[in-house]
Amino acid sequence: MNERFTKGFETIKQYVTEEEATRMVEHDVLADIAPDLRKMIVEFAYGDVYSRPGLDNKSRALVVITAVVTQGAAPQTKTHITRGLHVGLTPKEIVEALLQLVPYIGFPRVQNALTIAQQVFQEKELTV
Amino acid sequence: MNERFTKGFETIKQYVTEEEATRMVEHDVLADIAPDLRKMIVEFAYGDVYSRPGLDNKSRALVVITAVVTQGAAPQTKTHITRGLHVGLTPKEIVEALLQLVPYIGFPRVQNALTIAQQVFQEKELTV
Amino acid sequence: MNERFTKGFETIKQYVTEEEATRMVEHDVLADIAPDLRKMIVEFAYGDVYSRPGLDNKSRALVVITAVVTQGAAPQTKTHITRGLHVGLTPKEIVEALLQLVPYIGFPRVQNALTIAQQVFQEKELTV
Amino acid sequence: MNERFTKGFETIKQYVTEEEATRMVEHDVLADIAPDLRKMIVEFAYGDVYSRPGLDNKSRALVVITAVVTQGAAPQTKTHITRGLHVGLTPKEIVEALLQLVPYIGFPRVQNALTIAQQVFQEKELTV
Amino acid sequence: MNERFTKGFETIKQYVTEEEATRMVEHDVLADIAPDLRKMIVEFAYGDVYSRPGLDNKSRALVVITAVVTQGAAPQTKTHITRGLHVGLTPKEIVEALLQLVPYIGFPRVQNALTIAQQVFQEKELTV
Amino acid sequence: MNERFTKGFETIKQYVTEEEATRMVEHDVLADIAPDLRKMIVEFAYGDVYSRPGLDNKSRALVVITAVVTQGAAPQTKTHITRGLHVGLTPKEIVEALLQLVPYIGFPRVQNALTIAQQVFQEKELTV
Repeated sequence: MNERFTKGFETIKQYVTEEEATRMVEHDVLADIAPDLRKMIVEFAYGDVYSRPGLDNKSRALVVITAVVTQGAAPQTKTHITRGLHVGLTPKEIVEALLQLVPYIGFPRVQNALTIAQQVFQEKELTV
Repeated sequence: MNERFTKGFETIKQYVTEEEATRMVEHDVLADIAPDLRKMIVEFAYGDVYSRPGLDNKSRALVVITAVVTQGAAPQTKTHITRGLHVGLTPKEIVEALLQLVPYIGFPRVQNALTIAQQVFQEKELTV
Repeated sequence: MNERFTKGFETIKQYVTEEEATRMVEHDVLADIAPDLRKMIVEFAYGDVYSRPGLDNKSRALVVITAVVTQGAAPQTKTHITRGLHVGLTPKEIVEALLQLVPYIGFPRVQNALTIAQQVFQEKELTV
Repeated sequence: MNERFTKGFETIKQYVTEEEATRMVEHDVLADIAPDLRKMIVEFAYGDVYSRPGLDNKSRALVVITAVVTQGAAPQTKTHITRGLHVGLTPKEIVEALLQLVPYIGFPRVQNALTIAQQVFQEKELTV
Repeated sequence: MNERFTKGFETIKQYVTEEEATRMVEHDVLADIAPDLRKMIVEFAYGDVYSRPGLDNKSRALVVITAVVTQGAAPQTKTHITRGLHVGLTPKEIVEALLQLVPYIGFPRVQNALTIAQQVFQEKELTV
Repeated sequence: MNERFTKGFETIKQYVTEEEATRMVEHDVLADIAPDLRKMIVEFAYGDVYSRPGLDNKSRALVVITAVVTQGAAPQTKTHITRGLHVGLTPKEIVEALLQLVPYIGFPRVQNALTIAQQVFQEKELTV
């Protein structure tokens, strides 16, 4: 574990549960074909980028949720809504951010994202 | 001017200068071919959506900037960075939001957006 | 029910069965987290936009099918092919519109859309 | 000139002026690096696809305009709005098709497309 | 079978097993609604394009894998990774090409593509 | 200059002229608002990713050109066609790669990319 990995891992733990953070690193599902992907995510995405000063975690999470919803990336929409809740975004704030996207990306991608958000909230027994 | 238009117009004035708000409505550049577009933007985008409670203006602006940057929509990137500054996002917060996008949408769209941001900051004589 | 909602609801009933229209409004699946989404779809998409004069329903349906296929939005591709059939597009016209897209968006998205169209036609026992 | 090229060229002449058709073939601007691109467009896009029965030219033009607007492809938006007018779409129908896209692809791409449409209408001295 | 079809079919047989090539042509799953799609794929994609000189099969496969991954087209990602292996790309080369995309299209689409690649390699009992 | 930066800088020098490499680092045009972007590009894109073993430089360049063309990112299309030529792709190979994309992403983005390629070849006085 180099310094960037440690910094990235510390940052990840702000976005996910301790258990999830450990699982991400110790049971990397793509380890057999691309072990360096996880390393890149921890070191670059979390160590170099998420850990930067100048923008709070909730805003970073909002930005990332918006990006993956705009791309129509379903698995990442679920992942980052979950992480957004973990850093303190409320279900209401997440729903409002998704509705704010309607005039910019249209109903289809927002509707698909709200369906995923609903599933995350139900699993966590959260209400809006 | 119906109630939704009035509400939308009041909301727009939070995002742009008084002068710009008046210009948007009185000198609509697309008025000759699609006069209803401006009406839809004021009534729907601002009257129905931006004016909703539950998310502050700075967060709404961040979400919209992220959406148009992820789509690669250059004119709107300029427009919404300008509006983001008007509702209180700092140049540093905008730059940080754009850098936060690198791991999610890649360098090309972020680089193009930063070039636009740089131009907006220069016009307004702002530093990061 | 305000005037825009009524107008939107009347317009929706041109695109879906009476039963489906009622279901859309009375059993909104996202009602627990985003009750206003349905309202926006009925009032804005159908009340303000679809109901405009100047373009017939079949052309509006073709435009919307093309947009969601070009975006690669699978659930909406199914929804809008179904609505297109309801306003009078024939299965052959829908297939031709999809094939017309090949030179502009490439085979992958057209192939995925044709697979969805095939499923809709089979459910309705329609042949091309 | 093989049969597909001839068929494609006959089809193109339904979408552009005789002069433009001749220019497309005789003064291909990419001829020095990719002479086969024009051949593919004439033979495949127009000879194999546009010339198919089952959908009228105006509908094919609407579908293609929608696809390039949804992709955000500016030069092709101009080209295909021009061809749409040539096969009989009215400026009003084109504007209505673009406004119909707002709920599906959002304001930014529609606004950029309307700006291009406005320019085409002005050059041809057409009003909506 | 015209000349282009024959040429396309010969080219396809370089990218898939003999059995798969026969299946593609004889058991076209979309034959009931769009029999000409398969004809377009064989004649245009393989007969006119893939069969061109000037770029080797492995490079063509890399280009096509990159395009469908960048578009986020999941079924085609599986198809073209399989064809890439058939023309001689190694699992390692495919994984490296996907990792090379991270700085340009971001982690989400690369991660989704690697998950599909992993499944293809497992089905074929290949290791990286 | 840390180890990753040095490694990234050495890798960049394989893709651009010595002069260009120096310019990229010493005259970073975005240095006033986002000095860390250049650092991320050198350290992450070139130091961590491009420098990996397992895929030759020409293939990496082809993959990157394909990604930016598929995204429709014009400035990066020019940059990466230039870098592709520098690592040994011939103009013909680049044109063939772009034509190979037609069946997957459609004519519009390929046509726009060929126009950019033509300009790069002209500036360098190269023929296909």
